[in-house]
Amino acid sequence: MEYTIQPIGLIHSCYSEKFGIPRQPGLVKSARGSIELLPPCNREEMFKGLETFSHIWLQFVFHESMDDGWRPTVRPPWLGGRERVGLFASRSPHRPNFLGLSVVRYLGMRKVQGKLFLDIGELDLLHGTPIIDIKPYVPYSDRLEDAANGFVRFSEKKINVCFSAEVEVACRRYKEESGRDLKALIREVLEQDPRPASQRQKQREYGMLLWEMNVRWLADESEFTVLSVEKEEEE
Amino acid sequence: MEYTIQPIGLIHSCYSEKFGIPRQPGLVKSARGSIELLPPCNREEMFKGLETFSHIWLQFVFHESMDDGWRPTVRPPWLGGRERVGLFASRSPHRPNFLGLSVVRYLGMRKVQGKLFLDIGELDLLHGTPIIDIKPYVPYSDRLEDAANGFVRFSEKKINVCFSAEVEVACRRYKEESGRDLKALIREVLEQDPRPASQRQKQREYGMLLWEMNVRWLADESEFTVLSVEKEEEE
Repeated sequence: MEYTIQPIGLIHSCYSEKFGIPRQPGLVKSARGSIELLPPCNREEMFKGLETFSHIWLQFVFHESMDDGWRPTVRPPWLGGRERVGLFASRSPHRPNFLGLSVVRYLGMRKVQGKLFLDIGELDLLHGTPIIDIKPYVPYSDRLEDAANGFVRFSEKKINVCFSAEVEVACRRYKEESGRDLKALIREVLEQDPRPASQRQKQREYGMLLWEMNVRWLADESEFTVLSVEKEEEE
Repeated sequence: MEYTIQPIGLIHSCYSEKFGIPRQPGLVKSARGSIELLPPCNREEMFKGLETFSHIWLQFVFHESMDDGWRPTVRPPWLGGRERVGLFASRSPHRPNFLGLSVVRYLGMRKVQGKLFLDIGELDLLHGTPIIDIKPYVPYSDRLEDAANGFVRFSEKKINVCFSAEVEVACRRYKEESGRDLKALIREVLEQDPRPASQRQKQREYGMLLWEMNVRWLADESEFTVLSVEKEEEE
């Protein structure tokens, strides 16, 4: 018994690589992206009424996790990466069928050069992610008032993020060119502390790709400093 | 570009046929079922920690809707079956990839004759439904306080349900044999009015299969009367 599924769309995302993606949607309010709809699902009428909802569910494939396979147990970041739980008690991308589920803000529909796009915000999805279904988020059935958070403990503590003077200038220039608030995006991504739990004690420099910009930052014990923002060179 | 997915489990459900299934999970509190886990996903350790959550997401295939295909627009029951919206603005089972998403109450794990089961409640799933992923419901990310209900308008009005004396006896006997509260299940299913919107004005008799019991009831304008409850004869 098996089923064949085909992507109905592809994600365009500010997250050009896995490192930096927040562990849940909704955490980084400045995150922006869109779904490029693929035939035969690129007809406007298929989305009529979706504009009355504020949020949508995306079912997708963790396409960049497939090569690594999956294991019966995982160490979720929710537990600081120390304890093992069953993979089905986690949202790990490394799971049978490699299926993901994410709720994002729906910002509207756009047509560009004959292609249909749905604009979305607060996403946690990698650029290029294949979307296999879209559904409205219906609070009446999806917002459970009496649900338990399980072993999930989120830290409210946010990292303090500083920007060098050159980075401030680079972000302003990028905003003028693209309209995108890169500085807010960098701040919100770093406030979530994207480092693996195992590296949290060390001082170290990191790089991450947001849109087409390579962002370098220094992690110290109590704060992060953004050192440079430069256009990624084409390979 | 396509992906092959394999069921990780199969639903055992009080809903033995499509007619009668509520339009959302959570509506019928007495609904009971289980997920029979299939190899290689039938190892207990894969679910370690899941018991700390009260609810779980099930991603599944609308396997009995595939033969009918899908259309770009649908008439959702939320709008009384009158108005058309895009299929992606609905939760219709008739959709590309035929993927479903449902949150159910998690009641615990059970091992019977070497098979592993997860017991679930408040489900809206047909018996035999292939499950393709299980994830914890995490209120921190899944319960959106500021989400809009869109065009969805649920009626709070419940149908008045009466039981004939013979049905009362049959339900008591069934409870002694199976431990299942069939009467509560029938009441809650009928209170949601399972009739198609187009038939709501007419007086008519209906039959539906809950577990292995054939339930017959008469729909009147203001109330439903359960006429008989009999074991479905084997074909």
